Formats: sequence, C-alpha cells, structure tokens
Amino acid sequence: MKVAAMTMTKSQRTRHFIVESMAEMFNKRGYSGTSMSDVETITGLSRGTIYHHFDTKEDIALAAFDYNFEKLCKLVEDHTKRSKSFYDQLVVYTEVYHMIATDSVSGGSPIMNTAIEADDTNVLLRERAIRAIKKKENTIAGIIDMGIRSGEFKKGTDTRQLAVAILSTLEGGLTLSRTTRDPVRMECVSASVKALVNAIVN
Amino acid sequence: MKVAAMTMTKSQRTRHFIVESMAEMFNKRGYSGTSMSDVETITGLSRGTIYHHFDTKEDIALAAFDYNFEKLCKLVEDHTKRSKSFYDQLVVYTEVYHMIATDSVSGGSPIMNTAIEADDTNVLLRERAIRAIKKKENTIAGIIDMGIRSGEFKKGTDTRQLAVAILSTLEGGLTLSRTTRDPVRMECVSASVKALVNAIVN
Repeated sequence: MKVAAMTMTKSQRTRHFIVESMAEMFNKRGYSGTSMSDVETITGLSRGTIYHHFDTKEDIALAAFDYNFEKLCKLVEDHTKRSKSFYDQLVVYTEVYHMIATDSVSGGSPIMNTAIEADDTNVLLRERAIRAIKKKENTIAGIIDMGIRSGEFKKGTDTRQLAVAILSTLEGGLTLSRTTRDPVRMECVSASVKALVNAIVN
Repeated sequence: MKVAAMTMTKSQRTRHFIVESMAEMFNKRGYSGTSMSDVETITGLSRGTIYHHFDTKEDIALAAFDYNFEKLCKLVEDHTKRSKSFYDQLVVYTEVYHMIATDSVSGGSPIMNTAIEADDTNVLLRERAIRAIKKKENTIAGIIDMGIRSGEFKKGTDTRQLAVAILSTLEGGLTLSRTTRDPVRMECVSASVKALVNAIVN
C-alpha cells in the first residue's frame, strides 16, 4: 500500500497483487488454513510465478499480516484526525473496533488472528504479532501521556497499565463479538473502555 | 473426564485416551494445524482404530474442545470454592487467567483459540465456542446478580455489560500476555478488572 501503483515496477505490482488478493483469506483462515493451492486459485497465477515473488507460503503470510495491520492502523489514524481532545482520541478506538466487529468481510483483527495462531507455533508470525501489539500499546500510551501533560488527564495515571487494559478489552471484545455475530458485545466493551478513560479525566 | 476410568468400557477408555492425548495439540495448533498423522503419531494408534472411534478429525477437535473447556471451568470452580464473598468470586477469575497465562503447557484459553480459528471457518467449532462464551458470561453475570441481591454490589449495575467486559478483558489480556510471553500484561488486565468490580461495591 505504501508504494503507489503508478510508480511500481511490474514485479512489485505482481507481488503487491498477490499480497492484496490473499490478505483477507490469511486473516480469516490463518496460515495453517490457507494452502498454496488457495493462493493459485485466488490470484489466478501459476505456482511458478508465485514462488518467483515469495520463497515460501510463510513469506506471503507475513506480507499479508503487514498489509492487514497497516490497514488497521490507517483506519485508526483516519478517525483520530477528527478528534479534538485526547479523550476523543481514545474513544475513537472503540468506534474503529466496533466497525471491525460489524464488518463481515475483512475477518476481524489481524493482531488477534495472528497472535492466537502463532503463539504456540510460527516464530516469525509471532514476532510480527508481538511488534503489532507493542506498537498499538505504545500509541495508546502516547495519547494518555499527552493527555496527562496537557492537563486533560490525571497526573499519576498508570499509563502502561491503562494502555494494556484498553487494547486487551477491545481485542477480546472484538473476538467474542465476531464469534457470536453479536455487536451488542462490542457496545458492552466500549462502555467499559469509556469508564476506564472517564476515571482518569480531570 | 466425567466418567471415571474404572467404570469405562474398553471402547470408552480408548476414545477418552485419544481426546486426552490430543487436547493440548488442538488447543495449541488448532483444527487446521493438526493432521490425522499427528493423531496417529501422538496416540500411537492406527488410523483404522482412530476412525473406529471418531468419524472425522472434526469430531476429535470438538471432543478436545469440550475436554479443554471443562478443564478451564473446573479450574475456576476449584478456586471459587474458597471465595468468601461475591467480590472474591469475581477476583478469582483474574487469578485463574493469570495461571493460564504463565502455564506454557496447555496452550492458553480454549475459548479464544477456538473462537479465533472458527469465527470465519468451521461451523460446529464456532457453535462450541459460542456456547462456551455464553456459559462463561452467564456464570459471571450470575455472581454479579447474587452480589446485588445480597447487598454486596450496587443496585442498578448493568450485569450483562459488566460480565461481557470482564470476560473480554481477561480473554484479550490472556492472548496478548501469552503471545508476548509477558505475564506483566496479565497483571495490568487484572488491575483493570478489579477496578471495574470495585466500582460496583457498596
């Protein structure tokens, strides 16, 4: 997504096409649940062409994770832009996760999908999931810290504890909500996150 | 686990042996990540014997889920027995999830593992995960309701909202904690759950 289609070489375009085409399936079915035959069927490319761009199925899974995670980050970023306060910036997360919960297409959070599959199995995918978890926690912690410095949030707030709790609650709620196909669960979770944030407002 | 080994027929014992042997692998690697060859290797039984007891790999995965979920419920139950208040009964959940987070053997929460894998794929496994989510939510909601009736918790507490939030926070935190191999995340999450419960104490 970073390289504009116009400036890509033919090889980069094919690589990007494979990743973009496979991103949804890897997010929904995972690494184990997606075969090289699936990649052939969905992209319409031969196995030879696919292996010219990626050494292994794992390489496609890693690129698909990066693609999906970047999409999630961009979704948060686009919504955060409109926020007028640090409180609003935190509440945006509940709105974005609600959107993902009710979107039946994309397959939910790439963080959770990859974390659950890879925590006991694939080392490289697990490393990607860890990096994504830390990045999200740090972004949330950064908002809380800026809110404290601006006087919007209480001094002495345990920034890291709250950031971990917010991310855990949203990711957990999203999974329960998507599995049960019941977005009311996401509303319950959003209310809980708002209560946690309200508790630190000055 | 319900049928004592002594009273089992030979056929029941073999079936139980297969489920018990495969429970950990299905919880760690999931349905897609576990093959019938794995079942043969781990149990040491022939494919013919395995298929005599289970029609499909899916049937073993379903039985393994039931086994793992029953184990989780029993763990909570054993710890709840010692609780002297409804507050303590809720806090027990944070302790049990902390135990699962630091236990490298069992592969984490069967609810989350199965929910994530099955939400976009396997219908029967998804149904099992939904039933487990609802059972856990109802148990937590039941404790909150009893606490309200006894006067320990505030009247007007949104029981369902709080039960969903507690389960989401714990399941989400457990996943982030296990993926990063950092139990401090579970402590952050436990603090958050305790804050939610403290807010309803009379």
